[in-house]
Amino acid sequence: MAGVPLERLCIHQVTLMQCGFAESLECLARHGVPMTAIWHEKLDEVGVAAARRVLTDTQVEPVALCVGGTMAIGDAAERASQIELTRRRIEFCADLGIESLLMLTGGLGSGETDLLAARLNALEGFDSVVPEARAAGVRLVLEPLHPMVCGFRSVISTLSAACDFLDELDADDATGVALDTYALWWDLNLPRDIRRAAPRLRHFHVSDWLAETTDLRLDRGMPGDGLINNRAIRRSVEDAGFRGPVEIEIFSKRHWWRESPDEVVSEIVQRTSDFV
Amino acid sequence: MAGVPLERLCIHQVTLMQCGFAESLECLARHGVPMTAIWHEKLDEVGVAAARRVLTDTQVEPVALCVGGTMAIGDAAERASQIELTRRRIEFCADLGIESLLMLTGGLGSGETDLLAARLNALEGFDSVVPEARAAGVRLVLEPLHPMVCGFRSVISTLSAACDFLDELDADDATGVALDTYALWWDLNLPRDIRRAAPRLRHFHVSDWLAETTDLRLDRGMPGDGLINNRAIRRSVEDAGFRGPVEIEIFSKRHWWRESPDEVVSEIVQRTSDFV
Repeated sequence: MAGVPLERLCIHQVTLMQCGFAESLECLARHGVPMTAIWHEKLDEVGVAAARRVLTDTQVEPVALCVGGTMAIGDAAERASQIELTRRRIEFCADLGIESLLMLTGGLGSGETDLLAARLNALEGFDSVVPEARAAGVRLVLEPLHPMVCGFRSVISTLSAACDFLDELDADDATGVALDTYALWWDLNLPRDIRRAAPRLRHFHVSDWLAETTDLRLDRGMPGDGLINNRAIRRSVEDAGFRGPVEIEIFSKRHWWRESPDEVVSEIVQRTSDFV
Repeated sequence: MAGVPLERLCIHQVTLMQCGFAESLECLARHGVPMTAIWHEKLDEVGVAAARRVLTDTQVEPVALCVGGTMAIGDAAERASQIELTRRRIEFCADLGIESLLMLTGGLGSGETDLLAARLNALEGFDSVVPEARAAGVRLVLEPLHPMVCGFRSVISTLSAACDFLDELDADDATGVALDTYALWWDLNLPRDIRRAAPRLRHFHVSDWLAETTDLRLDRGMPGDGLINNRAIRRSVEDAGFRGPVEIEIFSKRHWWRESPDEVVSEIVQRTSDFV
C-alpha cells in the first residue's frame, strides 16, 4: 500500500500553533497541501470575514472547524452557554462553506464522577443543536478521545461508544464520526468498530503516540516516531470504504510547535508518504 | 450501600513502597488490615523464607503476588526469559500459599507497532505456563491496564479484551481476571463487561484518577480524591456476585509514597469506608 499522495493530505491548523491564521494557511499553500481543518482559537483571533479572505487567497480548502462546544460539563447555565457557542460555530461553518463541525462531548465537571450523567448532558446538547446544523447543511462530527482525557475532554473514549451515542441521537443526516488514531490505536476492537462506524465515518485524523510521552494532551508525535501503525489503521479505514483526506493533527507543545512551520509541513509531507 | 468494612480490606504492599517487606506488613497488622497483595520487588529483596516468616508473624493474608512476567515483549529469547520468570513466581505463590499470580501482558517492544502480534506472544506465553499454574494450584489472573500504558505495560486495555483473551486461552480452571478501577473507570461498557467477566472475576483493585494527574503510571490517587465513582463500580461488581476483598493499590510517587505508612493506612481505612 502506497503512502498518502499530496492531493489527499490535510493538515490541521492546530498543528501549526506557532502561526497566526493567515501564516498557517499560506505555509500550507506554499507546500501544495490542499486542505486544512480550522482551529477555533485561530478563527476567533481574526474573525470570519478575514478568515474568508485568507481561504480565498490561499485556495486551501477547510474540511472542518475544530471544535464545537463541550456540552457535557457544568450546571445548566454553563451547558446552555456551550450550546450557544456550538450554534455560533455552526454559523461560522455555514459562512465559510465548511461541511463539518468537529465535536467533543467534554468530560466531567469539578467534583463530578457520573459519566452517564455527563454523557446524557452531551446527548441533550447535541439534540438541541441538530436542527440548526441540519438547516445550515453542517454536520456535527463526534470525535472520541483517548481514555486518559476522559476527565476533562470527552466521556466518549471509543469508536463503539461514539456509534452508540449517535445511534441514540438518531440524526444521521446531520451527524458523523471522526477517527483519530492517537485516541484509538490501543483498541483491539478497532478493525471491527471501523466496519460498524464506516457509514458515518467523515474524518480520519493521524498522529503518533510517543513511547515516552510526557503530557496527557499536548505531546503528540509525527507519524513514524511512535507506536501507532497508522498505515494499518488507514488500510482498515479504506477497506471499509472511506475515501476522504488523511488529516494530520499534532498537538506538540514541546517539539513541533517550536519548529519553523515550513520544516513541520515538509516533514509531514514526507512522513505521510512513508508511514501513513 | 455501606462502605468497606475492615475485614474485607486488602492493601497492596506496593501502596507502601516507602517500606521494606516486613515493615509494610507490620504496619497493616497494626491497623487490623487483614489482607495484602505481595509486590514482586519487595519479595525479591527478602526472599521466600523471610517472607514466609513475616507472613506468619503478622498473620496478614497474601491474596495475590503482583506480578508475573510480561510475555508479549521482545525477541524469542527475551520472551523465554519472561516465561521462566513467570514459572519462578508461580513457585513463589505455591511456596507462600498465594492463590493468585497477577499477570500483565506487557506492551510493545522497541520499534514495534503490531499490537496483535504482541497479544499473540502473550497468549502463547500464558499457554506455556498454564500447566505449571494448574499443577501448583495457582491461578494466573490477567489484569487489563489503562490504554495510556498500552505501549509499555499491557496490550489488554479493557475488561472485554481480557475476556476475549481468556476465551481464546481456554483454561478457566487456572486463570481469572482482575478489575482495577483506575484502569477501566472511563469505559461506558464497564457495567455490561462486569456481567460478562463475573464468573472469572478474582480481584477488585481500587484507587482514584486525579483530575490533574502528572504521570502515566505512578500518580494514582486515594479513593475520594479524584474522578472515579468507586462505590458505583463496587456495586456493579457485587451485583454480579463478587464477594472477594476490596484491594487498594495506589502507585503514588509524588504523594503517598512520601508519607508515613501509618498515616497512609489509616487514611485508606477511612476512605474505603467513606468512598468505596
